[in-house]
Amino acid sequence: MSAIFAHRMQGVRPSTVREILKVTEQPDFISFAGGLPAPELFPVAEVAAAAARVLAEGGPSALQYGPTEGYAPLRELLAAQMSAMRAISCHPDDLLITTGSQQALDLIGKVFLDPGDCVLTESPTYLAAIQAFQFYEARFVSVPTDEHGLIPEALPEYIERERPKFLYTIPNFQNPTGVTLTAERRRKLYQIAVRYGLVIVEDDPYGALRYAGTPSDPVKSLDSEGLVVYLSTVSKIIAPGLRTGWVVGPAEILRKLTIAKQAADLHSSSFDQRVVHRYLTDNDSEAHIARICAAYGERYRCMDSALQAGLPDSYRWTRPEGGMFLWVTCPEGIDTGELMLRAMESKIIFVPGRDFFPDASGHRYMRLNFSNASPERIRTGIERLAEVCHAALAVAT
Amino acid sequence: MSAIFAHRMQGVRPSTVREILKVTEQPDFISFAGGLPAPELFPVAEVAAAAARVLAEGGPSALQYGPTEGYAPLRELLAAQMSAMRAISCHPDDLLITTGSQQALDLIGKVFLDPGDCVLTESPTYLAAIQAFQFYEARFVSVPTDEHGLIPEALPEYIERERPKFLYTIPNFQNPTGVTLTAERRRKLYQIAVRYGLVIVEDDPYGALRYAGTPSDPVKSLDSEGLVVYLSTVSKIIAPGLRTGWVVGPAEILRKLTIAKQAADLHSSSFDQRVVHRYLTDNDSEAHIARICAAYGERYRCMDSALQAGLPDSYRWTRPEGGMFLWVTCPEGIDTGELMLRAMESKIIFVPGRDFFPDASGHRYMRLNFSNASPERIRTGIERLAEVCHAALAVAT
Repeated sequence: MSAIFAHRMQGVRPSTVREILKVTEQPDFISFAGGLPAPELFPVAEVAAAAARVLAEGGPSALQYGPTEGYAPLRELLAAQMSAMRAISCHPDDLLITTGSQQALDLIGKVFLDPGDCVLTESPTYLAAIQAFQFYEARFVSVPTDEHGLIPEALPEYIERERPKFLYTIPNFQNPTGVTLTAERRRKLYQIAVRYGLVIVEDDPYGALRYAGTPSDPVKSLDSEGLVVYLSTVSKIIAPGLRTGWVVGPAEILRKLTIAKQAADLHSSSFDQRVVHRYLTDNDSEAHIARICAAYGERYRCMDSALQAGLPDSYRWTRPEGGMFLWVTCPEGIDTGELMLRAMESKIIFVPGRDFFPDASGHRYMRLNFSNASPERIRTGIERLAEVCHAALAVAT
Repeated sequence: MSAIFAHRMQGVRPSTVREILKVTEQPDFISFAGGLPAPELFPVAEVAAAAARVLAEGGPSALQYGPTEGYAPLRELLAAQMSAMRAISCHPDDLLITTGSQQALDLIGKVFLDPGDCVLTESPTYLAAIQAFQFYEARFVSVPTDEHGLIPEALPEYIERERPKFLYTIPNFQNPTGVTLTAERRRKLYQIAVRYGLVIVEDDPYGALRYAGTPSDPVKSLDSEGLVVYLSTVSKIIAPGLRTGWVVGPAEILRKLTIAKQAADLHSSSFDQRVVHRYLTDNDSEAHIARICAAYGERYRCMDSALQAGLPDSYRWTRPEGGMFLWVTCPEGIDTGELMLRAMESKIIFVPGRDFFPDASGHRYMRLNFSNASPERIRTGIERLAEVCHAALAVAT
């Protein structure tokens, strides 16, 4: 039967992460694998109040079909927040609501990519972006990165040689490394984009989750020339189950994305959009985000300490100032795909690095999530992981 | 800048219907254009109770990321309903939750269609299906239809000549014509599908909305060979704003659709899925559907009577036994695109037929929706429309 499927289906596989998530829902498993926010911090009562008010006041219109662009009051509110809090000059017409940021990635692939078109990415990069662009048969080219994010000076050579459709970047607390692009590099990156007419897709799901250091404005805040497509979401600041994200972009790109969204799902949930709008209007969401940051900061420090106490000296890892992930580099000879099988025997799980490289290289790396488990479980889990890492090292050497 | 966009963007345009919807939100406009269910029949209080209970009992898990396949209890409930009420033998694993039926159409396009691949459709057919498949650069071929739906005997010639990836059909109260495929033709269609290994995409958003006549089982109910992909939705039986649809399909196809959905939006709203599940569990949804059918039947009869009383003799229209639309054939010489401009001056609106033909033919037709306006407004609106039709006829002859 496989002959009936489209050519694009040959290269795609289900995400290991999401397959892993299914396996590890047992309570005695400690998972550092998923990108799950801490559910105990979800504002459940506030969302319940918002939902009740939306239906009491909005009535049937909260359940009817709506415009593809999104619920107008939510677009207005988010546009104002973009301007006030992220230094992004934004009119509501510049903003499209999406069914989570993941849909924005899919729509961007749909609108920009012909088979074989080049996408420049950091290396490693977000696995579900790889997955989304793979459906459009993108050709991925990794640009050099270090502990401060991608290296702008390296870009011109890649742009001239590869003629990319766009650069995909996660400047804040990158998934999977946790690394943040410096303010200086953001300026240089944008200058290069202007020089070459390079479209930048700036994915910013974690920007608000800073627990240390000083924030930098998004690349989009510099976008006088209309080259940056900026993505964000309420997944990490309210809750991911509401599947509410947004794109801020230049008019022509946004128009194309809107047409693509119309064909993709007509519009995102009318109800969820109104609930998000009501929640953001009726609550001090800044105070809520501060609580999330405090909790994630504590969890990060707990994981960092446990790694320092437990891992062999030859293992290294990143020190993110926010977000939900850190990235471990294992010594030569360790294959984290194999390590994961041992880890699962010890009821502990992480994501092997290879999923974050378009060419499935990166066997020495693992991504650890620190947002979802309690400090106590983080300590227990890292103790288990440390044992597995020591044992692997003994075999490898 | 348009050089940067993908090839597929050249052929796509925003849907006229959705553009029209934006214009006609003024209260003195009477719209027969949209495919909107009657909002006054939405079970707002019941949805509010379901939402409150979901958050009170499910807590954070109702707002967390979930499996791509959908919320397991909802899949179980819908699978049981498919078996009990639609004669479709269905295990929960055979069912994928989608962000409305529209997403199922997009995923089907993504999974099956390479550029130039043939899709067989009824003529006319659902415009948003055309739009979804156009993004994958489908080649549309219309199969002969009459007042009982598509004509199975005509299919073999088309299958042999065009080698279609699938046939797209809406057997119940088709959008836009309101026509229903007879039980006899369903059997013949399925026999032909088996003979040729033809995949059938059976779109059934309106099946439950029957106000007259006798129901026929879906083509999917005959599917011993695993050839039919069946789509349905809560949009017309609860509310469309919840964006909850589902696909029942053969295992290999469903697996591919699930991988495509993972890249498209990870999963549909956790909250909305639980609200739908709770609503269906806690309420007599059959009684609610009966109320919708009674109301739509009344509105249909009201529109049919008003058309009989008002339209010139040379206009003809279909007599659907359910659903939300009827289809008017105007006499030679009338162009409903032009007629629409006159109608809008009279604060009345419909959808011109050309949007429902992949080749934009069909200038003599218009689609009228009878589910969204009250009987009183239907009478007023059809009076206005009749004046416009008489005037157009006077010009044309």
